Amino acid sequence: MTPVITEERIRVRYGETDQMGHAYYANYLFWFEQARGAWCRERGWTYKQMEELGYKIPVVEAHVEYKGEVLYDDLIVVKVWVSELRRASIRFDYEVINTSNDKITTKGYTWHVLIGESRKAVTMPPSIREWLTRDPSQHETVL
Amino acid sequence: MTPVITEERIRVRYGETDQMGHAYYANYLFWFEQARGAWCRERGWTYKQMEELGYKIPVVEAHVEYKGEVLYDDLIVVKVWVSELRRASIRFDYEVINTSNDKITTKGYTWHVLIGESRKAVTMPPSIREWLTRDPSQHETVL
Amino acid sequence: MTPVITEERIRVRYGETDQMGHAYYANYLFWFEQARGAWCRERGWTYKQMEELGYKIPVVEAHVEYKGEVLYDDLIVVKVWVSELRRASIRFDYEVINTSNDKITTKGYTWHVLIGESRKAVTMPPSIREWLTRDPSQHETVL
Amino acid sequence: MTPVITEERIRVRYGETDQMGHAYYANYLFWFEQARGAWCRERGWTYKQMEELGYKIPVVEAHVEYKGEVLYDDLIVVKVWVSELRRASIRFDYEVINTSNDKITTKGYTWHVLIGESRKAVTMPPSIREWLTRDPSQHETVL
Repeated sequence: MTPVITEERIRVRYGETDQMGHAYYANYLFWFEQARGAWCRERGWTYKQMEELGYKIPVVEAHVEYKGEVLYDDLIVVKVWVSELRRASIRFDYEVINTSNDKITTKGYTWHVLIGESRKAVTMPPSIREWLTRDPSQHETVL
Repeated sequence: MTPVITEERIRVRYGETDQMGHAYYANYLFWFEQARGAWCRERGWTYKQMEELGYKIPVVEAHVEYKGEVLYDDLIVVKVWVSELRRASIRFDYEVINTSNDKITTKGYTWHVLIGESRKAVTMPPSIREWLTRDPSQHETVL
Repeated sequence: MTPVITEERIRVRYGETDQMGHAYYANYLFWFEQARGAWCRERGWTYKQMEELGYKIPVVEAHVEYKGEVLYDDLIVVKVWVSELRRASIRFDYEVINTSNDKITTKGYTWHVLIGESRKAVTMPPSIREWLTRDPSQHETVL
Repeated sequence: MTPVITEERIRVRYGETDQMGHAYYANYLFWFEQARGAWCRERGWTYKQMEELGYKIPVVEAHVEYKGEVLYDDLIVVKVWVSELRRASIRFDYEVINTSNDKITTKGYTWHVLIGESRKAVTMPPSIREWLTRDPSQHETVL
């Protein structure tokens, strides 16, 4: 099944640059997280609701390849999709487009494990699996 | 009573600079917090222990005056002391010295309110007041 | 003259919270900066362009009053306006509304000094003053 | 040749936690950077000096595996060493030990490319290569 991509547009903050004049490399992980949040919303639920149900999906692995420049005030588009879904874990992939030159500036992925109240990995219950495999065209985006 | 000053030495991170080449203005609030943590330790307890007892002291007001430059790799000394202690609130004052030129680069203060498990302001119990008014020379620093 | 307010909507990131469950107090300064950027755009120019002309307006003083809670995923509106304009300095005021309860959660201000290539305060040239006093209704917002 | 490991001790800030109660996943990249700075110092030079000479080593790839918890106020030790050195690029590896339980909580690596004033990758000049291959026991740590 082809994963449906969600796109999140982000304007780079001054405080996200460093003295090299680029966005500091850690900030991409904040942007990836913001894009994951938008990914949930587009499927009719929020990550906040998932936590209210007693589940969390902390990151257990992160990978970023920095291929181009991202500067202050650049408008970037973070594309995010689920590339793999296992019994208790999920992988999101990312591509960052810099709209100032329409190039892919960054690629990355994050692995997450589903944990319950006990803070231990748990098999995804059907309700959570349904959330993670939804077709966004069938659901209202949460505003 | 003259407040006893605690000093915390901090090396400025690359990720704390911005494209102007200075430390970004929000980072001073992180440094103030780190200095408050050191202030607690020097009095024989940690802020973590205070939270474990069910109390928190969130910031309700912050003020910073930026007087000089702080650059990447500069070693700064954040001086922190309690300038006022009320029934349910406390004010910390700060002075940041940049050791690269021994100048005061920044001044500031933060007001905090003591809250309990209910997340409402509470009158300081004697045990907490004792912690906040301790003479550090009478206590072992928590390492 | 009544200053014209610009509003910037920001979704609170997970990484902007702390273990107390609130937005960490330093993040408001990032949000203020983002709102200033939007303020410029709404007047037909960008802060990036100001820097390209050789001018910067670093913060020399910041003040924040935290009056209410801001939680993960809350949608906040940062209102920003110029409250004072002097020969070489400018003050922005801020009010943060949390749309989850429509309350003012935060108030603040920042003082900035105009500096030129020499990194020293300079009297505002007419072109910069014109930018800072523009009526946004007479200019196209920079997208 | 066995690489010589540098260790950097870091106290986790409150502002580095998130509402899950752990250190937010992006902060490890700040800590890695701080450890790289200490790695340079232990070899008798600073990354700041490298930039003053006209060279930079921006990150082109970053990888982090989160294996255990890192909480507020934990004292972590970031071990860093050079695992690979090529004509124009260098890889640092990291291991984070949480001293609260003496476990390895995190592993990671970063790839960097040497760039010159032109912002293009350049072959390492002998002087830079000498810096990067130094035996720290033969040099005074820069304080």
